[in-house]
Amino acid sequence: MTRTHAVPDLVDRARGGDARAVARLITLVEDASPRLPEIAAALAPHTGRARVVGLTGAPGVGKSTTTSALVGAYRARGQRVGVLAIDPSSPFSGGALLGDRIRMQDHATDPGVFIRSMATRGHLGGLAWSTPQAVRVLDAAGFDVVLVETVGVGQSEVDVVALADSVVVLLAPGMGDGIQAAKAGILEIADVFAVNKADRDGADATVRDLKHAISLGRREIRGASWRQPVVKTTADRGAGIADLVEAVDAHHDWTAAHGDLAARRVERARAEIEAVALAALRARWRGDRLDALAVRVAAGECDPYTAAHALTADGENDHPG
Amino acid sequence: MTRTHAVPDLVDRARGGDARAVARLITLVEDASPRLPEIAAALAPHTGRARVVGLTGAPGVGKSTTTSALVGAYRARGQRVGVLAIDPSSPFSGGALLGDRIRMQDHATDPGVFIRSMATRGHLGGLAWSTPQAVRVLDAAGFDVVLVETVGVGQSEVDVVALADSVVVLLAPGMGDGIQAAKAGILEIADVFAVNKADRDGADATVRDLKHAISLGRREIRGASWRQPVVKTTADRGAGIADLVEAVDAHHDWTAAHGDLAARRVERARAEIEAVALAALRARWRGDRLDALAVRVAAGECDPYTAAHALTADGENDHPG
Repeated sequence: MTRTHAVPDLVDRARGGDARAVARLITLVEDASPRLPEIAAALAPHTGRARVVGLTGAPGVGKSTTTSALVGAYRARGQRVGVLAIDPSSPFSGGALLGDRIRMQDHATDPGVFIRSMATRGHLGGLAWSTPQAVRVLDAAGFDVVLVETVGVGQSEVDVVALADSVVVLLAPGMGDGIQAAKAGILEIADVFAVNKADRDGADATVRDLKHAISLGRREIRGASWRQPVVKTTADRGAGIADLVEAVDAHHDWTAAHGDLAARRVERARAEIEAVALAALRARWRGDRLDALAVRVAAGECDPYTAAHALTADGENDHPG
Repeated sequence: MTRTHAVPDLVDRARGGDARAVARLITLVEDASPRLPEIAAALAPHTGRARVVGLTGAPGVGKSTTTSALVGAYRARGQRVGVLAIDPSSPFSGGALLGDRIRMQDHATDPGVFIRSMATRGHLGGLAWSTPQAVRVLDAAGFDVVLVETVGVGQSEVDVVALADSVVVLLAPGMGDGIQAAKAGILEIADVFAVNKADRDGADATVRDLKHAISLGRREIRGASWRQPVVKTTADRGAGIADLVEAVDAHHDWTAAHGDLAARRVERARAEIEAVALAALRARWRGDRLDALAVRVAAGECDPYTAAHALTADGENDHPG
């Protein structure tokens, strides 16, 4: 079944707008297919066009609703949109849970929209390995915007979304507000803030606290400074979504003008190359030699640095392919 | 300042119960000190005695309160306890936030307790690299129990806690219950479940749902099967904590009898060796060669697999030390 289509054919069909070919390519990424080097080579010439927008926030701030509203806004101006929703999987459910993505079904029959929940936990290399490759598939397939949605708690999840061209961090009033976001370590990766559920009590206070935090901690980027805007949204009614799209556009234009966009894309490529290289090495290391070293370290006979040195020194005359 | 004490002296003092020496060693881990190989070698002969207990759950289930109650219970039977609280850091706060660890201060003046919030985000190798090394410090320093507390959302955080000798997963009624836990991908790593805030409405329903989920999805380990117990706790009043300690003891005894404890410790060592080796390789890779490859990948001139191959093939005659 997995070899029904040759790689060039799959890539051609994905580029021609065939959603099943796109889905198939992302499944091959999730399954760590041995055909991935060939796929990557076929995709590469067609990449670099999509605008990659990350969206993150603590559980319960309304990420799915906001993502869905953004999809609608980009569609309204004629752009094709791909969505990657990053969810830890569970063996109890057998994959990524789709429960809270019900609203996404507004777009289920629109051929200009492709939505995928990624189930990646436990895979070699994890999110850092699989997410950029899935983005690459959507980029090559001609989606104008790729939205990457992750939960804003967790080192891997935050690291992955931080590599987008523009990062939207969502907050909501009455959830511990600024402190809650600071705990998740996500304030510093925001290019645009959205205070969602803005019809609730406390929204203005959240906006005020956030602006104060920004004024204290703002980043300096390449000599010029991007002051992160704060947009109020009520995503389930569509309120504020046009402002949010405009703020993301403004950030995109600013980064393109200041060289930051190119720098981010190089940083994303750098992280992707590293993740691919590390996964290849890990696959090569797994086996008797590592097992024997681990037994010695667990017994206190050897320390992990000496063991790591032995592991990487061994086999230095071959390299992963 | 960082070289005030020679490594053997620091390790001797940590083993003699000097909390400042323990703190200094963990800081050297967090700072990725070049002295870590020497430290690891000095620690190794003294490791393998501590019982490592992981504790995780979604935000708001009462992890800190439960950890603090467990510390009290272990102290009551004369055991020394080390706690590692894994928190994403924020540059706004300049480090791990201690806000919700206030209750930990119950134990702040007890020399038999060492509590540390780890600020690890952005470090080379991240949690997978730093946490086991910090556990190793506490183990060598003679702590009988090392509690590792992480948020139960996020691939890295869940992976790290899954490597403990015993993993306690906390749930609370009225938080979306089973589904909430399944989303975090943490049901499958639980050895013991605690339904905290058991004085609240819905606690019995949560226990019932959980037992049902366990009956559907239970793991088979080495031919014998450990059926995860479900304990009700109200940690802020100390209720159920003795039952929780007893359940963790029972799991420990079971794993020791069935060979699973040794297997987990080997797996933990394996992950630690890999993390150390990968961090060394990443440090070696960062530089002009990777930058040049990343520019080509970002421009679509090269794919990440070809680039990764070029990266790892380059310099194959030297290895990280």
